Amino acid sequence: MRVLANIVLVSLMGFFAAACQETGQETEQGETLANTPRASGFDTALESAENKINTQLLLPLTVPTPKDAGGGYTHEKHKENAKLIYDAGQLFKLTGEQKFADFAGKLMTAYADVYPYWDLHPAKKEQSPGRMFWQNLNESWWLLHVAQGYGAVKNALSSEQRTKIETDLLRNMAEFLSDGSPETFDKIHNHGTWATAAVGLTGYAIGDEDYVQQALLGLDKSGDAGFLKQMEKLFSPDGYYNEGPYYQRYALMPFVVFAQAVEQNDPERKIFERRDRILQKAIYTTIQQSYGGLFFPINDAIKDKGIATTELLYGVAIAYDLTGDKGLLSIAEAQDKFVLTPESRKVADDLAAGKAEPFDYKTMRLRDGENGTEGALDIIRASSNPNDLTLVVKNTSQGLGHGHFDKLGFLLYDAGHEIIRDYGAARFLNVEAKYGGHYLAENNSFAKQTIAHNALIVDQTSHFGGDTQTGNKYAPKIGVFANNDDLKITTAEIDTAYPDVTIVRTMALVRDAAFPQPIVIDLMEARSKASHQYDLPFYYNGQLTETNFELRGYATSREPLGNDNGYQYLWEVGKGKAVAGLSQVTWLLDRKFYTVTSSVPESTEIIFAEIGANDPNFNLRREPVFILRATSDEDVSFASVIEPHGEYNPIVEFTVDSHPGVKSVQHLKFGADHYIRVQTKDEQTVGLAVAGEMSKTAEHSIEIGGTDVTWTGPYKLFHSQKHTEGGE
Amino acid sequence: MRVLANIVLVSLMGFFAAACQETGQETEQGETLANTPRASGFDTALESAENKINTQLLLPLTVPTPKDAGGGYTHEKHKENAKLIYDAGQLFKLTGEQKFADFAGKLMTAYADVYPYWDLHPAKKEQSPGRMFWQNLNESWWLLHVAQGYGAVKNALSSEQRTKIETDLLRNMAEFLSDGSPETFDKIHNHGTWATAAVGLTGYAIGDEDYVQQALLGLDKSGDAGFLKQMEKLFSPDGYYNEGPYYQRYALMPFVVFAQAVEQNDPERKIFERRDRILQKAIYTTIQQSYGGLFFPINDAIKDKGIATTELLYGVAIAYDLTGDKGLLSIAEAQDKFVLTPESRKVADDLAAGKAEPFDYKTMRLRDGENGTEGALDIIRASSNPNDLTLVVKNTSQGLGHGHFDKLGFLLYDAGHEIIRDYGAARFLNVEAKYGGHYLAENNSFAKQTIAHNALIVDQTSHFGGDTQTGNKYAPKIGVFANNDDLKITTAEIDTAYPDVTIVRTMALVRDAAFPQPIVIDLMEARSKASHQYDLPFYYNGQLTETNFELRGYATSREPLGNDNGYQYLWEVGKGKAVAGLSQVTWLLDRKFYTVTSSVPESTEIIFAEIGANDPNFNLRREPVFILRATSDEDVSFASVIEPHGEYNPIVEFTVDSHPGVKSVQHLKFGADHYIRVQTKDEQTVGLAVAGEMSKTAEHSIEIGGTDVTWTGPYKLFHSQKHTEGGE
Repeated sequence: MRVLANIVLVSLMGFFAAACQETGQETEQGETLANTPRASGFDTALESAENKINTQLLLPLTVPTPKDAGGGYTHEKHKENAKLIYDAGQLFKLTGEQKFADFAGKLMTAYADVYPYWDLHPAKKEQSPGRMFWQNLNESWWLLHVAQGYGAVKNALSSEQRTKIETDLLRNMAEFLSDGSPETFDKIHNHGTWATAAVGLTGYAIGDEDYVQQALLGLDKSGDAGFLKQMEKLFSPDGYYNEGPYYQRYALMPFVVFAQAVEQNDPERKIFERRDRILQKAIYTTIQQSYGGLFFPINDAIKDKGIATTELLYGVAIAYDLTGDKGLLSIAEAQDKFVLTPESRKVADDLAAGKAEPFDYKTMRLRDGENGTEGALDIIRASSNPNDLTLVVKNTSQGLGHGHFDKLGFLLYDAGHEIIRDYGAARFLNVEAKYGGHYLAENNSFAKQTIAHNALIVDQTSHFGGDTQTGNKYAPKIGVFANNDDLKITTAEIDTAYPDVTIVRTMALVRDAAFPQPIVIDLMEARSKASHQYDLPFYYNGQLTETNFELRGYATSREPLGNDNGYQYLWEVGKGKAVAGLSQVTWLLDRKFYTVTSSVPESTEIIFAEIGANDPNFNLRREPVFILRATSDEDVSFASVIEPHGEYNPIVEFTVDSHPGVKSVQHLKFGADHYIRVQTKDEQTVGLAVAGEMSKTAEHSIEIGGTDVTWTGPYKLFHSQKHTEGGE
Repeated sequence: MRVLANIVLVSLMGFFAAACQETGQETEQGETLANTPRASGFDTALESAENKINTQLLLPLTVPTPKDAGGGYTHEKHKENAKLIYDAGQLFKLTGEQKFADFAGKLMTAYADVYPYWDLHPAKKEQSPGRMFWQNLNESWWLLHVAQGYGAVKNALSSEQRTKIETDLLRNMAEFLSDGSPETFDKIHNHGTWATAAVGLTGYAIGDEDYVQQALLGLDKSGDAGFLKQMEKLFSPDGYYNEGPYYQRYALMPFVVFAQAVEQNDPERKIFERRDRILQKAIYTTIQQSYGGLFFPINDAIKDKGIATTELLYGVAIAYDLTGDKGLLSIAEAQDKFVLTPESRKVADDLAAGKAEPFDYKTMRLRDGENGTEGALDIIRASSNPNDLTLVVKNTSQGLGHGHFDKLGFLLYDAGHEIIRDYGAARFLNVEAKYGGHYLAENNSFAKQTIAHNALIVDQTSHFGGDTQTGNKYAPKIGVFANNDDLKITTAEIDTAYPDVTIVRTMALVRDAAFPQPIVIDLMEARSKASHQYDLPFYYNGQLTETNFELRGYATSREPLGNDNGYQYLWEVGKGKAVAGLSQVTWLLDRKFYTVTSSVPESTEIIFAEIGANDPNFNLRREPVFILRATSDEDVSFASVIEPHGEYNPIVEFTVDSHPGVKSVQHLKFGADHYIRVQTKDEQTVGLAVAGEMSKTAEHSIEIGGTDVTWTGPYKLFHSQKHTEGGE
């Protein structure tokens, strides 16, 4: 391997020298390469791209007539061709070898021969159909790549070729995407960003300022639409994208790629400084919204998508170019892939030079909405270690068409795993046998419904009646968010999810010596004057080990838990009853135990269920859940402690602390003030006081077991004796 | 981090110099350390052990009265104490610091104070109870460690201490384990090996040759029992242990540790050369019986046990000492842990010096039985890459009390995952809430039963009527085993699993240019003159994507598939019917698709099921299976191709070849000869001829579609045209 690497290095050095002679580029890169202590990932990317194009040079060009939907042959072939044109362009820029320009030119010409004659795609989607692809979103994606490829090679093409490609392919497509598709182009939506970026990049590539102006300011160039408006509207001031991280990384790509072209061509626009460096923030928040390398799968998210996604290769490289933040290098290291841009090369070189530092994963509140007034995504991490205990509370707005009905829902991670999880989207991306790779019907009927989430369900109906338009109108009211060493806390409430119920959830990550690891406190309240049934699900991940109540799984038959609103997809598999207002459920995942101990209304039932009923096509994953169910004609609350504990070690064969440390949880109310008292089996007590108001100066005084407890401000953690005595 | 490592290195160097002065050891180790280019894992192990003992020095000794079963407090505490005594002994040997000897001496004395008064354990197991532990197996484990600890420190103890420890602890325990437990000590069984090794090591430690003789030759020193006999009987000539790898690694520990003591004390016994170096073979085969670092989970195996297990830390270090095989260093690297022995230090140092080479994972037949005549475990690997396609065919004997009823069953791995899997044991080791950490009732009633495996079930009853004693009497007859580049093949048959049915299974791993990846061909035949129902399960791992037959999962109710023999634990979740004698089932796992295409008897039903019925305590994992079910009053066969194909890439967002390449599979019979014809969708044909006899010289001639097909020997692969034309 080492020998091979040296050969590559030598050949690349020669190759750069040649490239520099031919194109007049400075030799800096080549020298950097020679001095690099270990092979840079960029070299691998370069070599791989070269090999791919060299192989293509021996094959006939294939430009199939559009036929297949996403995932099908023609769809994939056109995507592949766009990448080839893009890569050939970058290779030409890097090497100056004419063969790459020729190849890109020929392939674009082949498209120019046929594109003008393609009508709407035969498998077109109803909304925003494309011509080459089933939807024009893919067409924008295609043009974004090809425009860049063209810009890179155009000076090496004949003027006939240039005219043909510009007229019959680039302009034809750009006009189809702009004037021809105003409902997409002028929309404040990621599809709109793809379209404006593609058209804008085309403008720069062919030197048509009109395209650039339309891209930046909208079809009528008024600034009411277009890329700049999208920058204003699509990210919150904290850089949160309102559909969530799965779509954020996708939306990010046209933003950063086109912004960079703007920066290079129109530096006076200072595009990266706009709106308090919003694009840079957006790149960072995309990374922050991940765990174990994968994005938080809120809303319609395919769960195996994460920071290694192609879009973030561009994003991280551009952010590194802008900031020099060495923490980004460790993200690049985890990505372990590079694109053929100068910024990506710089990342690869610095990484190879050993400059990487750990990325600073943070506890943070990401406000949602263009003005930051529409809820927030709250991320609470026990530490900056990306695999440490992490709580995500979804206090965001609906998130448009890809949003789920899971107000104040949460996800919990620990030790690199999902502990209490979200289903994400019901979709097999590009898998033809699974409904053609589209979102499955179960995405709407199950995955979006409230019961598919760790959120409160009233009367077995979803939030906002399961209506997206209604959901889009209302966001939670966010309360306190604090990030201290021993206590990280968030509160939010919503009174619009159901007509006559206000839901308030306070979640906190607490460190106390009474517990060897941090615990999560979850206070879920529902305030209503009417009689309702309340379901609070915990989609636990792992194998149930014990409960504090009698539980017998149904042995010989199973039935769906309900008939609609997603309940029909759950098999009811067992049921128990809380013991003296306490429910305790323990499970084992990998090497650790987790217990949810909940103070619940009297006569609360605990329903165990598994996803998979009414699933004739085997579309859904089988995942377990337990649901705290209470019926009440007054306010109710579920106060839970989520406690990671113990170790199951099958290698060295020992198991410790398989039983929870928590003995009891109590929720005490004093007017608008709350006190959660957690008692452990070894008689330690941890208390969390939560005030009914957010004032930082208001004083609160309550009496707990004959003792006065006072504090100032919206919350206060009362440590255990063990902790106070420094017993940690 | 680098600074810290240097400090450790410096402190260790000083510490070795001191150690060498005090004990007169040669300085070689210390020098090696200084020259080591990177920190050795041994140093970490040493430092960690030192810290642990230093902490203990500040605490009172705790020797609790025996009370708890496995996993409970007293059980774990005694285990911990044995490890402390062992480690203190090794640290004293390495450092010469008296404090370590004192600590071990005090702790052993504390045991000597109480051990003589301990009667049988209150939670004793029925068979072979212990006094300190619930079973004397744990007591042997304890003495094996403590005897070594004592041997290391005894010269530093006072003669009073020595007398007390030898009399009241070591001899008392050794006699309890030998004369006091003859049914274990003289048994040819791993419990016997633990007992003989413990007593033998005690003999060496206290200088009592009588103990050594009993250990080696049995209580009566006749050689009919004891360690040497166990070496003869417990491993097959190929180094296979008849309970399978999960127990092999456990059984291995006393073998290698005691053998090493024999080698050091009685080198003239040449113990490691005995029986064609059987112990060395056994260490290697333990490693070979793993995939992705985890042991093949055949029989009663806990699935997360693998090569990093403590027993193999000793095993690999001793094997490396014996062989110098640098492939073992990469196993040690994967283990990433070291024990405090000189051999382990050597491994760590050589690893740190960069001497590791890839371990040579092999295709191999491991014959079972003391003479190698009782079946075999057949391991077929596509390459030496430990994560490549790997087929394991269980043609072994029953495997005693921990054996499962899965004659001719198989497991398939690919891309680092289980593809077609075995349930392993139903047990949560040491998890009190799960039946006290014992094997669960479901281990016998489900996990051992044939239906829990990828093996043929006749009339919904398990092999040998589910009777272990019957099973122990019969082994499969093994046929051909061959390992060629393009074809790796195994055949075995058994006519004793059912009264009037002979089962024959041929499995092959085939490379042909018609397939981008190797495929598996599986010919399962049942020969009988009576009418029977045949069930052939495939415990597929992943998400079902398509079938060639109509399949509707049961939407609103589920029932168990049967009433007994393990069937009661399966929910029937859907059913289909083979189309024109062909069944095709495709699923997706991680990034790849897998299809089983089977030529089946007409009117075969395909039953889809999931584990989890009759499981009131949530003891079982929910895993899916499809079962080919046919009823016949003559011979039947199921000829399947298992085909890994395509790629699902959610990162770069493409999916290719999600549909299988196989169009049809046919099983053609010509008297005793068979021909499996596999046709692909692009009209390629691959054929596998299997003769009815094993003769290497016999000529066979059959006619396929009007063409004569001839071959010599027991099998022949007929490549596709594409392959023959070099189209790979």
